[in-house]
Amino acid sequence: MIINFQTSPEQYKHWRLSTEGPVATLSMDVQEDETLAEGYKLKLNSYDLGVDIELADAVQRLRFEHPEVGVVVITSLKPRIFCAGANIYMLGSSSHAFKVNFCKFTNETRCSIEDSSTHSGKKFLAALNGTASGGGYELAISCDEIYLVDDGNSAVSLPEVPLLGVLPGTGGLTRLVDKRKVRRDRADVFSTLAEGLKGKRAKEWGLIDDYFPTSKFQEGMAARIQSLIEANSHNNSAPGIKLNPLEFESGPDGREYKYVRVKLNRAQRYADLTIRGPESGLPTTPEEIQALGDAYWPLRAYRELDDALLHLRVNELETGLVCIRSEGEIDDVLAVDKTLATHQDHWLIREIVLNMARVLRRLDLTAKSFFALIELRSCFAGNVLELAIASDRTYMLNSPDKTIDVAVSDLNAGPLPMSNGLTRLRSRFLSQPDRLDEIFGLDRSFDTEDAEELGLVTFAPDDLDWEDEIRVAIEERTSLSPDALTGMEASLRFAGPETMDTKIYGRLTAWQNWIFQRPNAVGEHGALTNYGKPTQAQFDFRRT
Amino acid sequence: MIINFQTSPEQYKHWRLSTEGPVATLSMDVQEDETLAEGYKLKLNSYDLGVDIELADAVQRLRFEHPEVGVVVITSLKPRIFCAGANIYMLGSSSHAFKVNFCKFTNETRCSIEDSSTHSGKKFLAALNGTASGGGYELAISCDEIYLVDDGNSAVSLPEVPLLGVLPGTGGLTRLVDKRKVRRDRADVFSTLAEGLKGKRAKEWGLIDDYFPTSKFQEGMAARIQSLIEANSHNNSAPGIKLNPLEFESGPDGREYKYVRVKLNRAQRYADLTIRGPESGLPTTPEEIQALGDAYWPLRAYRELDDALLHLRVNELETGLVCIRSEGEIDDVLAVDKTLATHQDHWLIREIVLNMARVLRRLDLTAKSFFALIELRSCFAGNVLELAIASDRTYMLNSPDKTIDVAVSDLNAGPLPMSNGLTRLRSRFLSQPDRLDEIFGLDRSFDTEDAEELGLVTFAPDDLDWEDEIRVAIEERTSLSPDALTGMEASLRFAGPETMDTKIYGRLTAWQNWIFQRPNAVGEHGALTNYGKPTQAQFDFRRT
Repeated sequence: MIINFQTSPEQYKHWRLSTEGPVATLSMDVQEDETLAEGYKLKLNSYDLGVDIELADAVQRLRFEHPEVGVVVITSLKPRIFCAGANIYMLGSSSHAFKVNFCKFTNETRCSIEDSSTHSGKKFLAALNGTASGGGYELAISCDEIYLVDDGNSAVSLPEVPLLGVLPGTGGLTRLVDKRKVRRDRADVFSTLAEGLKGKRAKEWGLIDDYFPTSKFQEGMAARIQSLIEANSHNNSAPGIKLNPLEFESGPDGREYKYVRVKLNRAQRYADLTIRGPESGLPTTPEEIQALGDAYWPLRAYRELDDALLHLRVNELETGLVCIRSEGEIDDVLAVDKTLATHQDHWLIREIVLNMARVLRRLDLTAKSFFALIELRSCFAGNVLELAIASDRTYMLNSPDKTIDVAVSDLNAGPLPMSNGLTRLRSRFLSQPDRLDEIFGLDRSFDTEDAEELGLVTFAPDDLDWEDEIRVAIEERTSLSPDALTGMEASLRFAGPETMDTKIYGRLTAWQNWIFQRPNAVGEHGALTNYGKPTQAQFDFRRT
Repeated sequence: MIINFQTSPEQYKHWRLSTEGPVATLSMDVQEDETLAEGYKLKLNSYDLGVDIELADAVQRLRFEHPEVGVVVITSLKPRIFCAGANIYMLGSSSHAFKVNFCKFTNETRCSIEDSSTHSGKKFLAALNGTASGGGYELAISCDEIYLVDDGNSAVSLPEVPLLGVLPGTGGLTRLVDKRKVRRDRADVFSTLAEGLKGKRAKEWGLIDDYFPTSKFQEGMAARIQSLIEANSHNNSAPGIKLNPLEFESGPDGREYKYVRVKLNRAQRYADLTIRGPESGLPTTPEEIQALGDAYWPLRAYRELDDALLHLRVNELETGLVCIRSEGEIDDVLAVDKTLATHQDHWLIREIVLNMARVLRRLDLTAKSFFALIELRSCFAGNVLELAIASDRTYMLNSPDKTIDVAVSDLNAGPLPMSNGLTRLRSRFLSQPDRLDEIFGLDRSFDTEDAEELGLVTFAPDDLDWEDEIRVAIEERTSLSPDALTGMEASLRFAGPETMDTKIYGRLTAWQNWIFQRPNAVGEHGALTNYGKPTQAQFDFRRT
């Protein structure tokens, strides 16, 4: 089965998206039979990847199609239940790789909610009109504010540890202590209490912002929405642009989008991913760009790149290495970057750049190796160069007769940060912060020898060695243990500071992956395996 | 087999420790047959836990017994080989729990080297008179400076990923990019290159500080040692104090040290750990304390606590919960803390407090739950209170007729930081930084109701409920999946900033634990299993 990450509101099965002026409402109403795979039913607003793909689409679409929206209310259409979290039977019947990919994607969706709040001024309000357990509470805690109905029954909870022997895998533990700054002893009690906590105590412990009796819930929400709208500094009455479906041709060996090509070399377990640079003479004013809409290169190319990365992650598991190439003119890329940098205060340009940043972070977090290959007719400049800096290694051809150049732009200097909050160049040159001034101060492009001297590339083989060196590097990389590479890359890619996001992806995810392999969770007698069965989990109690 | 963590230089089998004025030399000369378990030989200065217990002892002993030492040279007595790292056959034949505990202890030893450098001014110099591979290079990279002999053969390397399908598990990856700030693309190449790099390139890439031809190696080292001595601001001619063996009585149900008692409730899978407070009227001047030596309560009690924690970790795997209690007088603890705070510039007092901090961090990093139980006749004040704040939860008896108090001291306000660089109280009150001023401003002890109000304890049951509540809490905790608890505690205990240390213990360790469970490493066809055999590893190449 090929998982498709594209959808749109008219295709949603599990969510309803409506907007009314500055307020959007995103209502969860999971259809229990509309599952992505067989063998489970999505009861009680529990979710599988298909449900989360719709949520991710809605969050993304609100940014581009509804700039007028300042408050997004997330709620449920089911009585007395907000969301029961990831479906346990789905998890229990999934492969390890799928569980890991599922958690990563849902985490990226939660982080995109926070990104939208921080950078686009859309405040998210979780209106918990019923119990939010597990991933349901984790969805709420990714919102700016959480309100719970006080009906004597509804609670918030993280029952993963006590009921399933796994962790809340969507950032819940990290956000408890780092975002909501819940005292760690209380977080400990809450995270081991299957039934969770209701209104009064949940508020006292900082798990929710407030609670209202059933009869006052709508009123309470309306008042809170109103004050969020009044406080919103991003008031925006501009019309949005439509995000149309991405078109691509799919063949047995890959996919061809307009600006992105994925060629799979399955026998060798690597893929070539080529990004085509922009055409020359693209518009330079926000008005023209708004008219061009989602056809504008930086938006379309990065949406395609995002889709390609997700496709490779989930549908091409054995592909362990992605070789990134580019085709085009450096000057055309730099012209686009100049437009983006000049107009970054315009809402659409801001959204376009923020999307580029998210796609690049998706790449950083992808459990595959990346080698960038800089050859003739490539266009590794500005935002495209960022793909090379994001790669684990970069090879640049040193041709005696033809010059190959790379170049930086303002986009390399701040607008496209990694999850650790630094630019990729700053992370790269932690030991030589002056190097950044040198690179940005030179105001010219760099040929192969310059680039090697400045530390922008790893190796610069000449014409004679190029093919052999690349071939051997690919063969060597794809021969190594894929697990060891994942752990190594997760350690080497994130030098420098850690943030809540990197803690979620590094610390929490790694622990969860470990637990997802442990017999106490997934073995015959494991808690996840035995959930909902008459049999009980039996643990090997040796603590490690 | 019970693993014993106590040793002393006269018992060392694998290391020789010598001092000459301000220079100590710690020479590795591993005896291949002197292994901790059967089934492997410690060839080529490879190590097992027994070797690292001696190293940890030497680093600790230098701090207390040799305050005059300003430079510690770590080198090898084997020709052409510095250290081959952790023994692969030992790893391959060890249980998962042992591998994890082994890596944690070796990491703590490496961090103690850095702690000694940072806080005690002892600079560590790795004199690599031969190849340093894997854990050998990780030992070197925990030193302040690394010098490699240039004999055409000797190299530094991290061959774990390419040869064994696991990670360098002793902080190597993190220290490459975070401590030595090696460019991540170079770190990627280095960490996948089994043979490693020799002098010139190793220096160019920042993996070592310098290299010398064989004939100039001793001379180069001598010059470097001399300049480190001259730069040392911690010149200290004071005599040291002797660290005598810890005495304890061991029975089937636990251990009785002088100030620490461990009582094992094996059937219920929890332990009671009681710390006895200091006697009254302990000396208050550094001179008297120096005369008292290792019998002084803060040193002896914390050395005992350290040994008890290590014993519980490694020898009592099924014990998943430790209930911490204390016995003594609050005023006596506060008197000791006052002495320690007043004289923290004296070398011995500084070392005593630094050791307390390390032991508390050992507790934070222990994969067991901790509940602190504050009852009548307890002495949870100052440094002893820190044990309660370090615990996952704290229960304090609310007695109607007898007052139970807790109190803070200057030691809670800075000198005993967690690995994340914050005090435990600051980590606890991330959302209410003012709370710290309130607690430290009150200048009195707090009874149960105060303590609950101030957020210093989790629950305060009264006499009638106490026994039942504690019994149920213990039963519930020990019934949960031990793996899920380990992952949960590792996430909740370290709110706030991350440091190189927390990255090593959180991010890197969690990934390594995952890999240590994966069939690609430890399965029948895994790389670790098949190392050194005629069979080859076969990987499941699905990337996760």
